[in-house]
Amino acid sequence: MATSATMFVKLAFLLSFLSSASALWPIPRQLSTGNITVRLASSFGIHANFAGAPSDLNDAISRTMSIIKTDQLAPLVIDRGASLIPTIQKAKQLTSLTLELSSSGGNPKTTVATSVPSISEEAVKAIGERDESYTLSVPGDGSSATIKANTTLGLLRGMTTFTQLLFTVDNMIFTSEAPVEITDSPAFPFRGFMLDTARNFFPVSDIKRTLDAMSWSKINQFHWHVTDSQSFPLQIPGFMELSQKAAYTASSVYTPSDVSDIVSYAAERGIDVLIEIDTPGHTAAISKSHPEHIACNEATPWANFANEPPAGQLRLASDATTNFTASMLAAVAKMFPSTLMSTGGDELNVNCYTQDNETQASLNASGLTLEQALSKFTVTTHAAIEKLGKTPVVWEEMVLEHNVTLANDTIAMVWISSDDVAAVAAKGFRIVHGPSDFFYLDCGGGEWVGVDIGNSWCDPFKTWQKAYSFDPFANLSEAQQSLILGGEQLLWTEQSSPSNLDPIVWPRAATSAEVFWTGATLPDGSQRNTPAGSDTALPRLHDLQFRMVARGVNAIPLQPQWCAVRPGVCDLTA
Amino acid sequence: MATSATMFVKLAFLLSFLSSASALWPIPRQLSTGNITVRLASSFGIHANFAGAPSDLNDAISRTMSIIKTDQLAPLVIDRGASLIPTIQKAKQLTSLTLELSSSGGNPKTTVATSVPSISEEAVKAIGERDESYTLSVPGDGSSATIKANTTLGLLRGMTTFTQLLFTVDNMIFTSEAPVEITDSPAFPFRGFMLDTARNFFPVSDIKRTLDAMSWSKINQFHWHVTDSQSFPLQIPGFMELSQKAAYTASSVYTPSDVSDIVSYAAERGIDVLIEIDTPGHTAAISKSHPEHIACNEATPWANFANEPPAGQLRLASDATTNFTASMLAAVAKMFPSTLMSTGGDELNVNCYTQDNETQASLNASGLTLEQALSKFTVTTHAAIEKLGKTPVVWEEMVLEHNVTLANDTIAMVWISSDDVAAVAAKGFRIVHGPSDFFYLDCGGGEWVGVDIGNSWCDPFKTWQKAYSFDPFANLSEAQQSLILGGEQLLWTEQSSPSNLDPIVWPRAATSAEVFWTGATLPDGSQRNTPAGSDTALPRLHDLQFRMVARGVNAIPLQPQWCAVRPGVCDLTA
Repeated sequence: MATSATMFVKLAFLLSFLSSASALWPIPRQLSTGNITVRLASSFGIHANFAGAPSDLNDAISRTMSIIKTDQLAPLVIDRGASLIPTIQKAKQLTSLTLELSSSGGNPKTTVATSVPSISEEAVKAIGERDESYTLSVPGDGSSATIKANTTLGLLRGMTTFTQLLFTVDNMIFTSEAPVEITDSPAFPFRGFMLDTARNFFPVSDIKRTLDAMSWSKINQFHWHVTDSQSFPLQIPGFMELSQKAAYTASSVYTPSDVSDIVSYAAERGIDVLIEIDTPGHTAAISKSHPEHIACNEATPWANFANEPPAGQLRLASDATTNFTASMLAAVAKMFPSTLMSTGGDELNVNCYTQDNETQASLNASGLTLEQALSKFTVTTHAAIEKLGKTPVVWEEMVLEHNVTLANDTIAMVWISSDDVAAVAAKGFRIVHGPSDFFYLDCGGGEWVGVDIGNSWCDPFKTWQKAYSFDPFANLSEAQQSLILGGEQLLWTEQSSPSNLDPIVWPRAATSAEVFWTGATLPDGSQRNTPAGSDTALPRLHDLQFRMVARGVNAIPLQPQWCAVRPGVCDLTA
Repeated sequence: MATSATMFVKLAFLLSFLSSASALWPIPRQLSTGNITVRLASSFGIHANFAGAPSDLNDAISRTMSIIKTDQLAPLVIDRGASLIPTIQKAKQLTSLTLELSSSGGNPKTTVATSVPSISEEAVKAIGERDESYTLSVPGDGSSATIKANTTLGLLRGMTTFTQLLFTVDNMIFTSEAPVEITDSPAFPFRGFMLDTARNFFPVSDIKRTLDAMSWSKINQFHWHVTDSQSFPLQIPGFMELSQKAAYTASSVYTPSDVSDIVSYAAERGIDVLIEIDTPGHTAAISKSHPEHIACNEATPWANFANEPPAGQLRLASDATTNFTASMLAAVAKMFPSTLMSTGGDELNVNCYTQDNETQASLNASGLTLEQALSKFTVTTHAAIEKLGKTPVVWEEMVLEHNVTLANDTIAMVWISSDDVAAVAAKGFRIVHGPSDFFYLDCGGGEWVGVDIGNSWCDPFKTWQKAYSFDPFANLSEAQQSLILGGEQLLWTEQSSPSNLDPIVWPRAATSAEVFWTGATLPDGSQRNTPAGSDTALPRLHDLQFRMVARGVNAIPLQPQWCAVRPGVCDLTA
């Protein structure tokens, strides 16, 4: 009896260890692994084998080395890898990871160094022009591991994958899966996370920590909903009065230097910053310095004039307001290197304009309808940023609810419901998925308006499982599929602050990172978004969560630790 | 127009400031305030005017002084108190807060010092014998403020209230509400918070931080669900093998020294520690060291044998197991000074015993039914702790679902539903409210078992508004009301860890602190748990949240900051 019980435990251990292998997130699109253990030599280093490595690649190498040493993650199995110690001790030692650029991307070290484009330069290229592909090879014989890529950005992605192959037991860092052969590239070019810094403020340090966490799951787009009706924390050169009057406090601002710092920090981590100045709604904060531009400012009852307090929208029918907005957007555009910029466009409240004498007077004078005035406002403001090389991004209402002239290359973000994707696609616009029914991280935390005992409008809580089940191509024809750029999970911050930023976001926001990197198919050919697929996902997501905590991000556990070290055993059906 | 708009803003400002006055949580039961501003002198100090002040009172004075200096809370109004500066500058200065014990509790400083019972001694007295009452007076003329109480525990509660009267503007600490006269005592003797440290582990530092936060809203009972089927982190003298084999890691344990540290830390803050060793269910972890005592250990499919994986329950029909449990409970009882101790008793799975050959053999041998065996087990294990002066606390099933002999003074915790309170009261047992439909802090975060896309069993999220609406006397006769000891909010930690402890608990868990301290009636005579009452609650809860963050606890914002500084303006009806 004792023997068979012991054997059962051993078998369960082995099975569970095997199933937690390849603990990569997002899982590469092509992956083969073996069962040879290789451990890092104490002299282990990462080396670029080409001349002219940009400084941000060298920084990325240093960060990778640091992560490898600090993760200290013991395998998520019952004995946390203790039984592997003899094998690791006698394993071949890996002394180096070599980074190679394909001929198009760099020069062999023996030739004269020429400039190799930096990670930062690659990261902010136009969507679709960023090359994140790489191959990663870890031989089983101790000879050098290799990452090959066309770009430094691809090398960064490969190093991110490499860190996730490694576990630590008894101070030995190792992988038990050599030889590893990975050929990887993202299924979609846009994999984002959106943060609202207007409902509540987040210091730069919180944003930087979030950018780090994003990079660990290869999220490449930070969508920064920086301003809203509640506050205007962005300092814009030439428009300093906006934040001066409407930031929550004098120190709750992002200076141009902060922006530059955030943009650089992001780009070095392979992340482009998509700034959003939401217009013409969600702009009551502008009234603090420019009351002349805002209709129905703080009008009550607010629910008649806006989806959230305070009410207040740009007087879109006013030429002065339109020109002010265009100039302000252009000034913002100049602060960000991205080719993308969002002008918002959600939740326009018509009653606000119906009740606004100034807007009615403007419409009467021009003979335009409100919709025509909106179109003129949009064309003018978009032209201002297009002139600066930006592609406009808008919320879905601008496509579906209004009759607005938009450039063909405008990108629409679908947020109200995943059901709306097909209608946007039918209009031929490119799409970023951000549906509230799958990807809103704030849902399910209860109603925040006062004197209301109810639940949040978008109940229930969007679990990682729900997000993981998302099908980017649902209800689309094959021809329409090319319109899908990717997607993002979003945090609206009515009830969030630095106090809960990490735990409300992580590891959940990594879910869409795999949806849009790996796509529909796991490397073994099985479907990703099926119960079986989510079963293989959970152990890998546990792994990422443990690494995040080790790296200083307060990601929450998705299960009791008892379950985390017993893959599959806490399944409902187990 | 400009003038009237300015006047409107000023009026709104004044109104909002007035409504955010008395920002106390829980609000005292009798309170009168004026509108005189008094500021703290730079020499301000807190002084006991009696001899023999215990050291934990002196420590509490030091902590209070520290909090007063670190809170730095500007009034939650639009201008954050800037317009008050001239008034504060010329205000009378308060140089001291005097602590006085009533004659029964201490001796005037001029007499010979005799021993004054410490806060810690008062805090761990039997439920109902702790005197937390106090009066607090802050005159408007700068003469000394005074707290009078019968006990050092009452003095502590008074100091906690005092800190909440104070705001800081331009480095001046002040109240604008003098003269303040408060006569206060709790409506209910049990105001608790429960933490599960078995599903995921929490280091001592997290528990201490939580105890601090509890004390700020006068929560006086820490219900520590320390062990469960997933892990056994408690080191028990004489039973060290339990944690040695079933703690998650060697360092994920509470040593006797840790326990002593936690107990002292709690008691100094007026908090009694109610330890729970959940039996006979929720005990699979015991199988790691004592497989002979556990039925259906890790049996599968787990859902047939337990509400959560892993399955495993004490073999309650076995005399050896009963004696082991009684001895273990007695050893735990000796670690804690509280007169209360919980033996658990929830979610007993009958099928586990039906399928267990050993249990069936024991029942056959004794001729007892399972229910009879459960009663015998309970009587024996309860006797072991009663002998050590403990009053047993059990989950509601022991009263409602089983035919178990319980001492009359046993306390039942109602958790399944608030609807079950009346049935427990009908059986005459004293009650602590912990209903999942109002007070479970973990609900609404999604299903944690694997391969299930669903929501948590107790959806939706329990908002602070929902908790605040709780009526402790619902469905009870007047005669039964005396059975209600109070209540607690609870955190089960399947998806919690130090990463989200603060934000998932605070400020929500302070809601029941007011429900059970203040009771049904606000100091102005209005009903607490009505929409109007919750309207006055929200600004006060914002205040507590800001103070918590200043004091190092990551409490979440309940609204955008725009709303927090405009009381009532974000109400659904505003």
